[in-house]
Amino acid sequence: MAPPVKNAVRAAAAPTEEWSSQPEVTAAHPPKNAAGDGDRRPISTVLIIIAMQTEALPLVNKFHLSEDIDGSLFPKGVPWVRYHGIYKELHINLVWTGKDSILAGVDSIGTISASLVSYASIQALKPDLIINAGTAGGFKAKGACVADVYLVSNVAFHDRRIPIHVIFFCVNYLYGIGARQTFSTPNLIDELNLKVGKLSTGDSLDMSPQDEVLILANDAVVKDMEGAAVAYVADLLSVPAIFIKAVTNTVDGQKSIAEEFLQNLIAVCTTLAQTVSQVVDFISGVYQIIGIRKSTSVYRKLYINTDEYYILKIMYQFA
Amino acid sequence: MAPPVKNAVRAAAAPTEEWSSQPEVTAAHPPKNAAGDGDRRPISTVLIIIAMQTEALPLVNKFHLSEDIDGSLFPKGVPWVRYHGIYKELHINLVWTGKDSILAGVDSIGTISASLVSYASIQALKPDLIINAGTAGGFKAKGACVADVYLVSNVAFHDRRIPIHVIFFCVNYLYGIGARQTFSTPNLIDELNLKVGKLSTGDSLDMSPQDEVLILANDAVVKDMEGAAVAYVADLLSVPAIFIKAVTNTVDGQKSIAEEFLQNLIAVCTTLAQTVSQVVDFISGVYQIIGIRKSTSVYRKLYINTDEYYILKIMYQFA
Repeated sequence: MAPPVKNAVRAAAAPTEEWSSQPEVTAAHPPKNAAGDGDRRPISTVLIIIAMQTEALPLVNKFHLSEDIDGSLFPKGVPWVRYHGIYKELHINLVWTGKDSILAGVDSIGTISASLVSYASIQALKPDLIINAGTAGGFKAKGACVADVYLVSNVAFHDRRIPIHVIFFCVNYLYGIGARQTFSTPNLIDELNLKVGKLSTGDSLDMSPQDEVLILANDAVVKDMEGAAVAYVADLLSVPAIFIKAVTNTVDGQKSIAEEFLQNLIAVCTTLAQTVSQVVDFISGVYQIIGIRKSTSVYRKLYINTDEYYILKIMYQFA
Repeated sequence: MAPPVKNAVRAAAAPTEEWSSQPEVTAAHPPKNAAGDGDRRPISTVLIIIAMQTEALPLVNKFHLSEDIDGSLFPKGVPWVRYHGIYKELHINLVWTGKDSILAGVDSIGTISASLVSYASIQALKPDLIINAGTAGGFKAKGACVADVYLVSNVAFHDRRIPIHVIFFCVNYLYGIGARQTFSTPNLIDELNLKVGKLSTGDSLDMSPQDEVLILANDAVVKDMEGAAVAYVADLLSVPAIFIKAVTNTVDGQKSIAEEFLQNLIAVCTTLAQTVSQVVDFISGVYQIIGIRKSTSVYRKLYINTDEYYILKIMYQFA
């Protein structure tokens, strides 16, 4: 069933597509708008995915979240930690990837832990929206400064080079880059006056010359170690995801990346928490329509309403 | 409860440790040995994790496996494919990461898909043993030749550089490298006369100078794109895992890696399937004792019996 077409952009983009809609409307959260209410339901469950304890704790405090003591959400052996609570009628679940189970004190950062915790949390919690919040390196040449907070428009990887060309077409290369547009939220950007930029993800804190070539090709203004992995899993399981990244250090500056990162980490995490809190305030009370086009083609669309209808094109792009 | 001590090596290594044992003994697979039978059970469920269709199909045919048609094992949206069947009283599950859901024809290779499919398959199937089988690049300088098949003794990553040093101790660096010894199987190595070597894993088919530095530090003879990720998940969830890697190309040779890889892929996958089949034949009828030391320290041991007692030390090593 097709959700109601509200504006010309949407109508022009999807004139004949098949849709699977989610018509559930909970009694506790009746639709605010009259048109097309059958397809609408409020955002109810929010999953915040975070890789470092220092990034997580200010948000745990801000939202007055409680830690899962029995640890029953995830299997025995994994270090992942879930905090949860109700905030402005939203079910907030903050899942931190935890400390490494062997090396004491080390946060489980990087793409593997981020993708695993995204998968397991989506399976367990069925969130309406994912927020991947974290710190990032910023590119001075693109205008990024320490303590800037970005809402990410696009994600891609910069350390997955797969140069296999089969009959002049480099699909393996594109798979490695894994470029995606993220869930589009123009009203949120306007409301909070957020900086918007592209994110490039890799498993190293530093930047090799090969990484730099792909980061430039990805047109990234910020660089992290989790975002594109979370986006990959969210896309697989059709959960809208947004990415909020706060700059701890410049990647193309004169200072050591690791030193600047450690020096600014705590202060920047406070700034990050403030922005995430504002985003959650904005989300509270917002209604959505979700319809996912049934298609196996390269080009897929996910239309999601927050206050208006937006168009999200999830597609691989030539880097 | 402590499993019975069978030889001096085991007794010397674990004089006072606490253990969790798995005493289940199925009626269909009575213990072969008289001593310590209460802790023994046969290996029953084997999970073979494979990243490429070309690697998977010879094994699907060899073991006469059937594809899961209803796809109920994994959530909607993921491309992962499970083949299963009974072979010599073993429940064989071959899970292939599938084709990318957007880019038609591209196998879901690399660490993220490998870790996700390992996690989801372990949760769904509770295997006694994982076999990660696949192709790899080999280092001529270390004696590797095209079509060689290696049983992997150690795994580590070479593209996760996290040079954060806190008070002179680089635990973040060690976390990034993620070096682990694999499940030790000396009898299997002797029986099949397998080559044994260390594996280094990264998300790129090529090798950058920075990758090369860490591959050398990891002392790797073969290089792949999944192994250390599968090992990480298997270790988190305490499932023994072995790694069988067949060399499609040399990494330090004169030829193009991508060209040599494509040129040899099909033939080498046939060789890989033959070896995996021999390994499964060996496993059939083998009994094990599993006891995992309860410890949160850096140093953990997992003792597993196949024909004799072996010692597996899962620990981070200085690269």
